[in-house]
Amino acid sequence: LAGRGLGFNRVAMCELFALNGSVPTAATFSFNGFSARGGETGEHADGWGMAFHDGDGCRVFIDAGRACDAPLAHFLRQHPLRARNVLAHVRKATQGAVALANCHPFQREWLGRHWLFCHNGDLKDFRPPLDGSALPVGSTDSEWAFCWLLQQLRRRFSVAPAWPQLAPVLAELVAQVARHGSFNLLLTDGQALYAHACTRLAWLERQHPFARAHLVDRDIEIDLATANAPGERMAVVATAPLTRGEPWQAFLPGELRVFEGGRSVWHQVTPLSIPEVALAP
Amino acid sequence: LAGRGLGFNRVAMCELFALNGSVPTAATFSFNGFSARGGETGEHADGWGMAFHDGDGCRVFIDAGRACDAPLAHFLRQHPLRARNVLAHVRKATQGAVALANCHPFQREWLGRHWLFCHNGDLKDFRPPLDGSALPVGSTDSEWAFCWLLQQLRRRFSVAPAWPQLAPVLAELVAQVARHGSFNLLLTDGQALYAHACTRLAWLERQHPFARAHLVDRDIEIDLATANAPGERMAVVATAPLTRGEPWQAFLPGELRVFEGGRSVWHQVTPLSIPEVALAP
Repeated sequence: LAGRGLGFNRVAMCELFALNGSVPTAATFSFNGFSARGGETGEHADGWGMAFHDGDGCRVFIDAGRACDAPLAHFLRQHPLRARNVLAHVRKATQGAVALANCHPFQREWLGRHWLFCHNGDLKDFRPPLDGSALPVGSTDSEWAFCWLLQQLRRRFSVAPAWPQLAPVLAELVAQVARHGSFNLLLTDGQALYAHACTRLAWLERQHPFARAHLVDRDIEIDLATANAPGERMAVVATAPLTRGEPWQAFLPGELRVFEGGRSVWHQVTPLSIPEVALAP
Repeated sequence: LAGRGLGFNRVAMCELFALNGSVPTAATFSFNGFSARGGETGEHADGWGMAFHDGDGCRVFIDAGRACDAPLAHFLRQHPLRARNVLAHVRKATQGAVALANCHPFQREWLGRHWLFCHNGDLKDFRPPLDGSALPVGSTDSEWAFCWLLQQLRRRFSVAPAWPQLAPVLAELVAQVARHGSFNLLLTDGQALYAHACTRLAWLERQHPFARAHLVDRDIEIDLATANAPGERMAVVATAPLTRGEPWQAFLPGELRVFEGGRSVWHQVTPLSIPEVALAP
């Protein structure tokens, strides 16, 4: 993938997963593979989280243990919760103790919507002043960056923005944060999914005719045509491809993409201001 | 109980439960009885929620169905999560549709802490202006009142207050809301538990020597001495007593109590400004 995107062979500090669907969609198959990275096929055993967000209704599940064998993760693999936006994160602690308060996704209400945020990367000395409109509860660089993003957005918007308004402003703010380190992120208000890559992130669209997909992390294959109706669409984002046999695409360094209604609807690449290699862990 | 507190024979619109412990405590036994009221022994089948809050780490579980037979409620009855503060709510919709966005507990971050809020009652025409620092996501009177309380508190405090600072200010604000209807509430920042009654609320302290307790709603009895170590204490709050054979005490109308370290540490009664009977559903 060199030359056209990001390589997938670097050890990430955390792993990200997101799904954006045209209809409420279960992410059970993907989470089955993804959660194996939380202590089984990956060493990200310092907590995990999964969120289901339909715009108004929003549910966040977090746990300080290993996603691969936590009873709550087992519950979520067994009981498909459906949502138009699903986020998941497995954590390998770099900044901040192993604690529930440091588990992603982080959640804040802004302009009458719940906003959810996950981060993979490491920000060096990024502690800009916060005005108190949103403050971190835990001790991670990630939650501080999320609060700063919301603070800056709060100054630009007085009514909840739709993605065409939000995306260009977000791209500008995210580029400012990315000067301080690696800032791979997922953000959603339950309507649109925003994903930004500094180092590693891949995405995929699924639509009719649905193919068969085989998990990379577990020996499980499903026929996506039986799990999804012909008119349904979904986009999937992950730190590294979760399946074999599907056309995963790498994000470019500095790329922000917006997914809505199960498809990629907007993207912009802001060149990273310092060499990408200097940002890596 | 007439003359000294609140009767327990009125049909409530929702039911509240809280536990405040000196150490992280499982509420599995209590939730077993309480969740039966969500569609089995009670008609509160329009959603439910349960939260576990230790000051920094905070987990909220909500569900739009019946607590008595929801798979997630079953999971929580089977897998004891321990926390110093536990809240639960079963909902009978009065204002706002049956939807995840209208399930309690509601959650907002203020001054670097997660605040959780549950309400039982009905507020008439209570839609005071909100400045945008906290806005409702759903459509209930309850969430609006929570956002208003946080907005008013935000104007009084610039660092997170401990309960001795917060309690008298909260009592004053809650009394203002209670002019508009029935405002039985639970509020916690994970440190202290604040509980206010207009109509129905009861509380109980448990400490060594622990007794046997028998659930009112299910035929289950436990020996609390085997479930708790001698030095542990806990306070339990519920709309109506959950057990037989324990000395539950009724809140007075207009009473705010603070529980911390597993005991009642503060209380104040602000007489309700209009007759209590006029507030009832």
